[in-house]
Amino acid sequence: MSGPQSDIEALIGLMARLPGLGPRSARRAVLHLLRKRSLLMAPLADAMARAARDTRNCGICGNLTSGDFCAICQDPARSDREICVVEDVADLWAMEAAGIFRGRYHVLGGRLSPLDGIGPEELRVPDLVRRVSTKGSDEVILALSTTVDGQSTAHYIADALTGTGVKTSTLAQGVPVGGELDYLDEGTISAALRARRSF
Amino acid sequence: MSGPQSDIEALIGLMARLPGLGPRSARRAVLHLLRKRSLLMAPLADAMARAARDTRNCGICGNLTSGDFCAICQDPARSDREICVVEDVADLWAMEAAGIFRGRYHVLGGRLSPLDGIGPEELRVPDLVRRVSTKGSDEVILALSTTVDGQSTAHYIADALTGTGVKTSTLAQGVPVGGELDYLDEGTISAALRARRSF
Repeated sequence: MSGPQSDIEALIGLMARLPGLGPRSARRAVLHLLRKRSLLMAPLADAMARAARDTRNCGICGNLTSGDFCAICQDPARSDREICVVEDVADLWAMEAAGIFRGRYHVLGGRLSPLDGIGPEELRVPDLVRRVSTKGSDEVILALSTTVDGQSTAHYIADALTGTGVKTSTLAQGVPVGGELDYLDEGTISAALRARRSF
Repeated sequence: MSGPQSDIEALIGLMARLPGLGPRSARRAVLHLLRKRSLLMAPLADAMARAARDTRNCGICGNLTSGDFCAICQDPARSDREICVVEDVADLWAMEAAGIFRGRYHVLGGRLSPLDGIGPEELRVPDLVRRVSTKGSDEVILALSTTVDGQSTAHYIADALTGTGVKTSTLAQGVPVGGELDYLDEGTISAALRARRSF
C-alpha cells in the first residue's frame, strides 16, 4: 500500500472521471480538498449530494431544475410563441448567457443516432409536436450543432413539425463576433459568404 | 436568473476553486455530474463527505490517514533508522510512488516563512528532533524543494538536529532520468556538472 489510503484512492478515481481532470490532476484536486477539509471539502460534498438528490429534468422542456418545472418554463414574462430546440442543457445555458432569447426551450438530450438506438422518442420529438400544437407557438428555432448528426436531427424535427404549420428556423452561420478570417475554417467562411448581407 | 439554478451555481462556484478547474471547466464538470447523478455524482459526494469526515493527519508523521496513525508509521517492516523530511503530503506520495524508500516520513506541512508567520513550531521541527532522539534514527533525509525557501528550511532543520548526532542528507541534484540537456535549465546543468561522478 503506497501513500494514499484506499478511501482517498477511491475518491481520486471518481474525481478522475470528471471531464478536464486526469489521474494526476484528480490527485492534486483531492489533495487540495483534503487540506481544506472543513472550508471546502465538506461544503462541496454537501452541495454535490444536495444537487444529486434534488435535481431533475423539467417536465416540460427537459432543463435541469430542483422542482417539477424549471424557472424558464414557469416565468410568466417569457413567451410560448417561440420555442428554441437545443441538444443539451449546456446549450440552453449558453443561449441564456447571451441573454437575448425570451421564449421557451425544448432540450432534446442528444441527437438522432439510429446506430446508438437514439430515435425521435428518446429525444421527445412527439412531446415537442404536442407542445407546439397546444400552445399555438409561432416559431421553432432549431439551435442544433452544425454537424451531420445535428443537421439531420434538425431536418427530422422540421419534417415532424410540418403538420402543425409552425415556422421553423435555424441560427445564422457566419463569422463569430471578434473572429478573424485567418483563423476560421473554410466551411464557416463559405457559409458566411453565401449568407452575405448588404452593408 | 439565467440558466442554471442557484443551487447548481453554488456547486459550480465550489468546483471552480479546485486547482486545474476554472469557471468554465467547473461548469462542464458539474453538467457532466448532473447527467450522471446516480452513477457518479452521488457516489462522489459520498466519498468526498466520508473523506472530509474521516481523514486526519497522522499523529506521528503528519501524513493523511483515516486512523490516528498512518499505515506507513504503523508498518513494522519499515525502519525508524531513516526519516525522510518532506514539505507536503503530495511529496510523500511522490516518494512512495518511487517505491524505494523503506524508512519513515516527517511531513512539515510547508516551509519556513517568517513573513507568513510560519516558524519551526508550525512545521513541527521540535517534534522531529524529539522523534530522532527517542527512536535513535541514523539518518534524516531532507527531501525539500530546491528553492530558496526550501533550502533555508533544510538548513534550519539540519542545524536543529546537530545536537542529536544524526546524519543529515539531501536528495541528489542532476539531470532527470530520461531528461534531455537541451530542455534543462542552467541551474540544473551546473548542479549536475558539479556533482559529476566517474563513469
